[in-house]
Amino acid sequence: MTRANTQARVSIVGGSGYTGGETLRLLLDHPQVEVTRVTSESNAGKFVHSVHPNLRRRTALKFESMEGLKSCDLLFLCLPHGEAMKRIEHFASLAPKLIDLSADFRLRQAADYDQWYGHSHAHPQWLGKFVYGIPELHREEIKKSNYVTGAGCLATAAILSLYPLFKAGAVNHKRVFIEAKVGSSAAGNKASLASHHPERSGSVRSFEPTGHRHTAEMIQELSLAGPAPQIYFSATAIEAVRGILSTSHVFVNPDLEEKEIWKIYRGCYEAEPFIRIVKERSGVYRYPEPKLLIGSNYCDMGFELEDSGKCPPDESGRRLVVMAAIDNLMKGAAGNAVQAMNLMLGFDETTGLGFPGLHPV
Amino acid sequence: MTRANTQARVSIVGGSGYTGGETLRLLLDHPQVEVTRVTSESNAGKFVHSVHPNLRRRTALKFESMEGLKSCDLLFLCLPHGEAMKRIEHFASLAPKLIDLSADFRLRQAADYDQWYGHSHAHPQWLGKFVYGIPELHREEIKKSNYVTGAGCLATAAILSLYPLFKAGAVNHKRVFIEAKVGSSAAGNKASLASHHPERSGSVRSFEPTGHRHTAEMIQELSLAGPAPQIYFSATAIEAVRGILSTSHVFVNPDLEEKEIWKIYRGCYEAEPFIRIVKERSGVYRYPEPKLLIGSNYCDMGFELEDSGKCPPDESGRRLVVMAAIDNLMKGAAGNAVQAMNLMLGFDETTGLGFPGLHPV
Amino acid sequence: MTRANTQARVSIVGGSGYTGGETLRLLLDHPQVEVTRVTSESNAGKFVHSVHPNLRRRTALKFESMEGLKSCDLLFLCLPHGEAMKRIEHFASLAPKLIDLSADFRLRQAADYDQWYGHSHAHPQWLGKFVYGIPELHREEIKKSNYVTGAGCLATAAILSLYPLFKAGAVNHKRVFIEAKVGSSAAGNKASLASHHPERSGSVRSFEPTGHRHTAEMIQELSLAGPAPQIYFSATAIEAVRGILSTSHVFVNPDLEEKEIWKIYRGCYEAEPFIRIVKERSGVYRYPEPKLLIGSNYCDMGFELEDSGKCPPDESGRRLVVMAAIDNLMKGAAGNAVQAMNLMLGFDETTGLGFPGLHPV
Amino acid sequence: MTRANTQARVSIVGGSGYTGGETLRLLLDHPQVEVTRVTSESNAGKFVHSVHPNLRRRTALKFESMEGLKSCDLLFLCLPHGEAMKRIEHFASLAPKLIDLSADFRLRQAADYDQWYGHSHAHPQWLGKFVYGIPELHREEIKKSNYVTGAGCLATAAILSLYPLFKAGAVNHKRVFIEAKVGSSAAGNKASLASHHPERSGSVRSFEPTGHRHTAEMIQELSLAGPAPQIYFSATAIEAVRGILSTSHVFVNPDLEEKEIWKIYRGCYEAEPFIRIVKERSGVYRYPEPKLLIGSNYCDMGFELEDSGKCPPDESGRRLVVMAAIDNLMKGAAGNAVQAMNLMLGFDETTGLGFPGLHPV
Repeated sequence: MTRANTQARVSIVGGSGYTGGETLRLLLDHPQVEVTRVTSESNAGKFVHSVHPNLRRRTALKFESMEGLKSCDLLFLCLPHGEAMKRIEHFASLAPKLIDLSADFRLRQAADYDQWYGHSHAHPQWLGKFVYGIPELHREEIKKSNYVTGAGCLATAAILSLYPLFKAGAVNHKRVFIEAKVGSSAAGNKASLASHHPERSGSVRSFEPTGHRHTAEMIQELSLAGPAPQIYFSATAIEAVRGILSTSHVFVNPDLEEKEIWKIYRGCYEAEPFIRIVKERSGVYRYPEPKLLIGSNYCDMGFELEDSGKCPPDESGRRLVVMAAIDNLMKGAAGNAVQAMNLMLGFDETTGLGFPGLHPV
Repeated sequence: MTRANTQARVSIVGGSGYTGGETLRLLLDHPQVEVTRVTSESNAGKFVHSVHPNLRRRTALKFESMEGLKSCDLLFLCLPHGEAMKRIEHFASLAPKLIDLSADFRLRQAADYDQWYGHSHAHPQWLGKFVYGIPELHREEIKKSNYVTGAGCLATAAILSLYPLFKAGAVNHKRVFIEAKVGSSAAGNKASLASHHPERSGSVRSFEPTGHRHTAEMIQELSLAGPAPQIYFSATAIEAVRGILSTSHVFVNPDLEEKEIWKIYRGCYEAEPFIRIVKERSGVYRYPEPKLLIGSNYCDMGFELEDSGKCPPDESGRRLVVMAAIDNLMKGAAGNAVQAMNLMLGFDETTGLGFPGLHPV
Repeated sequence: MTRANTQARVSIVGGSGYTGGETLRLLLDHPQVEVTRVTSESNAGKFVHSVHPNLRRRTALKFESMEGLKSCDLLFLCLPHGEAMKRIEHFASLAPKLIDLSADFRLRQAADYDQWYGHSHAHPQWLGKFVYGIPELHREEIKKSNYVTGAGCLATAAILSLYPLFKAGAVNHKRVFIEAKVGSSAAGNKASLASHHPERSGSVRSFEPTGHRHTAEMIQELSLAGPAPQIYFSATAIEAVRGILSTSHVFVNPDLEEKEIWKIYRGCYEAEPFIRIVKERSGVYRYPEPKLLIGSNYCDMGFELEDSGKCPPDESGRRLVVMAAIDNLMKGAAGNAVQAMNLMLGFDETTGLGFPGLHPV
Repeated sequence: MTRANTQARVSIVGGSGYTGGETLRLLLDHPQVEVTRVTSESNAGKFVHSVHPNLRRRTALKFESMEGLKSCDLLFLCLPHGEAMKRIEHFASLAPKLIDLSADFRLRQAADYDQWYGHSHAHPQWLGKFVYGIPELHREEIKKSNYVTGAGCLATAAILSLYPLFKAGAVNHKRVFIEAKVGSSAAGNKASLASHHPERSGSVRSFEPTGHRHTAEMIQELSLAGPAPQIYFSATAIEAVRGILSTSHVFVNPDLEEKEIWKIYRGCYEAEPFIRIVKERSGVYRYPEPKLLIGSNYCDMGFELEDSGKCPPDESGRRLVVMAAIDNLMKGAAGNAVQAMNLMLGFDETTGLGFPGLHPV
């Protein structure tokens, strides 16, 4: 593999989890990045491929303890929620640029951590330094920032697919119902009875009918003008390892025609390399389908307007159903983070993110 | 197996499909029923176990053509939608009691067939003769009726879990959002590219974001007082063969406490043999889970009230999320139909429906 | 549910695992059994349905500590391997009849425990008191015995399907290759990284290419005459929760015709209530398929003779491939144990085991 | 994406199937290839992404009829078995180099088509012109040849993992038992009742206990010296879309030690870019696992020697179990074909085949 001239030295803190492993996979094939260190306290000394077997023969790296971290150009923080906020000043002393994949710096208001996470933020003064790292919403800020936070995987699918409507002021009343279906890898790599295969296999499990923490991010990012939206979110775990399908119900002006909605989405995302509008009249895959995105950084989205004949608009307007699919470990975590890194380091935004997804799969 | 004295002679029309096969499975083990004939035009002459291999050594019945039907005590009609309505007078001449599992007699208004099914009803005068066959809502009518229609599988889960709230007048504004997750057997036994395993496996597919026909049944059955409810329904096909999880979002008075909701559900369903309220504070299965119901006639339901701290009630009230799980071929079709048959023939309502479901599965 | 006059009081030791839970499910619906106690040290005081959610509203039993056990008519021992052998005398003091579902009393030779299990047997003098509890092989001994051991799930499928051939002396050279495909529930209910859903889902995992402990049972039970067979066994974990498909390759006399093999199988199993020979010329289910047996006590088996034109017989003879399918928790554990119990207590052998399995599923 | 100087114009005949689609996916990202045409008779005029939805926004190509084919540098033939042989002279007139992914040119002896495929070969004189396209066995011939045939997916896994042993003369008696587990995509994209999701999902289905056509390729390629091996092959369809695990049982000299087997495999494959020997003492993934290879061109293989203590060597020697995993559409079809193309066109052998596979998945 040829290496371009511009080369960055990058390390990963917390590389034994699923987002850390996926970040590592992407960086190992990134032509402008050299992965210098990958940490894991419990696996220090072991080859990274002993934990991430897909990386056999792809790297001779071993996990190291966090104590052995050396300075580098950019540090990915892939620790469990609550860990990065405690050591943020130490990490900032090691690298001029940080990308945090946990929830620790996603919310701008410290009070939101008390409210949604049930604990106070350890370093609230750092919240303002981080940019919410969805490039489609904050590209220019990400380019200029040294500190970028990843987004929640469920939040990413919902926000990306609703953002054009909110931006265009097309949503009446700002009440949104969002139902997300999500695979098991989104819950991380800690084994428990709930994730034990005979219990988890084939399940359709409401794990957060209300109160899911990612709701806070959706409210924050969709509060574009006027009052904050009212987000009614529920999440259901389904039989899948990777993948999210987010189904949102919003209300639009009954006069709004389908072609105008197309225009809103195209206007917002036409130039986006990782957004595809999926809406076919025929065929098997008429709407976004997460399985097609396994390993890919795409967010596919589509929509359908309620037939007013069958279901007349009510006082809120006419229902528009918006669907969005992502791979939770890619556009929902590591892929999106590498996309942000490319922006922060001045690389082509799509470098290392070319895998298109598979069919059939 | 001992046979009780009261014995009914029952036939199945359209026995090669999934609902016909499941009805046959239940009837073969029903101590008060003798299955006299099972029809299938395309499989006439073959053993029923050649199509339903789980019935090997359970019966020596062969499929017959519809023409060979003889009179019997009760006829199950398990034909594709649109077929039973054409021949309803012929079927009624063969048996004093009919149970139709298609959609042909579910809606009371003939105009609803034009609206939701896109064709006129062949015998609209028969619509008023049929009782909508969910025993939990219409037990006494079913007992007295000769003509009972099954309910749509998605409609069954939604209606059963929302009925107590509507009956108690606890729903504000009558706007309901319902998102159903459903397995592949609900689409029947006709092979197509969309159902081809490499395409269908692992999918999370919005097949009816709006306009699903079962919506008409939900509106009909939940129009208990005052204006008809506004039902915003979407259905998503997931990786499962059997099973439905219906997630509904309704709005209740913000003062309504959880214990009062419990009271509403208990008051409505305490004596119901096939309804279980599932709401645990801990454990893996805190809410209804359809995989536990495979082969069983239960409808499990649960609910969760929005935390007003995180999401303050809006002008519609406070969100209540209601979940319901069924096996689409059992409580959503054949099991419910046998339960109705038991009522129509004066048998114990639970006869032949004792299978509890499996764990793990 | 009506109760017959003959009623047995039965308890389950170790009722929180998968085999204990399945035994409990069967016994709760058994018309001649009363379940008096179910023990679990870690769950003592909790409702059994908190661990086995399929039993909600089916029983008000709570787990108790082993210390609280009282005398009863028959005791099911569903403890992890190695536990029952330590306390066998205590258990025998509590009930005149014992059925052990662990591996502790399956092998007749104490030395086999050193060889295959890597530890000495705690009470080798008890090995001779137990009957190997596959009714199809040892029905009369089971009827007369007070101590019966269950069989290994993988061993059950292999032994049942090969027994007719060995009994008839139809196997040349006694070399057998057996490859078993097995679902995740066979590994029990202890969560680990290997069973964590994102790791275990979709896997095709050789977990015991050689040296599987169940091999010892196969050798023991198939040593019918002459030298012990040479069993080359491998096991592969596949994507399934329940189910085993065992594929065996044996060599028979090249002159043996298919109809004679049919005769051998029919002669052996024609009267068996839970054995079905599955061998169809057409259709989807031409051979045994474990998914059709989920929840059922059947063992389905089939066979195919090598086409001598394509693959000429060698010095060992002509290859015969024998396939057998079971539900590992039913015929491979709890179902078979209840069948044995019925024999030990003089009940009809099939009582409580009537569930036929589902289609589709 | 930068394009290298050497650029080849390549077309795909039969691009709507699974191997055609996968070939197209790889070629679209191949920096030295331009895909000029993709044919499909039934989809002519449609965008290729209407059939292969993973290619949305990756190409504006449309399917064309075979009649519209123009001359190009290399032609991939991805037609159903039996089609390429009829038109081979026409295809050879269109391009100087052909790679056929069907079975039509895999066997060297015309009589083998009568024997294993049940029909005569249309152009037997072409059989000798084709090289069997597994680069690990025939790299130098492939480089020099204009006509290369792909290998059967099941044959590829078996042959690659047994070749080192046969080449080293390490197999006693040349009797091999091979049991392959395979996903649904290997059967192609034609929908049928057998592939209908409710029937195929969760199945463990012996579809070819004996007589599988790929056996002929195994015999051909493993006949390295002395008598042809006796191959006892069986194939079982399991719950997966992509993936093959091949489990082979061979007999080796009882004195052969594990480290010598390692040496045999390393000696054969150390320099191979797509072969990995997988054999870990601990961890979840101790042996090859096909799900890790989804989308990748690796063949992972491992082995385990029978413990002579538990199972003494017999007259054939000591059992060695060899496992091999591939993605049937990659190393088993399209990936292997692109690897062969790279060799034929003088490109770096690994170009366009860099995807490592995913974890978790």
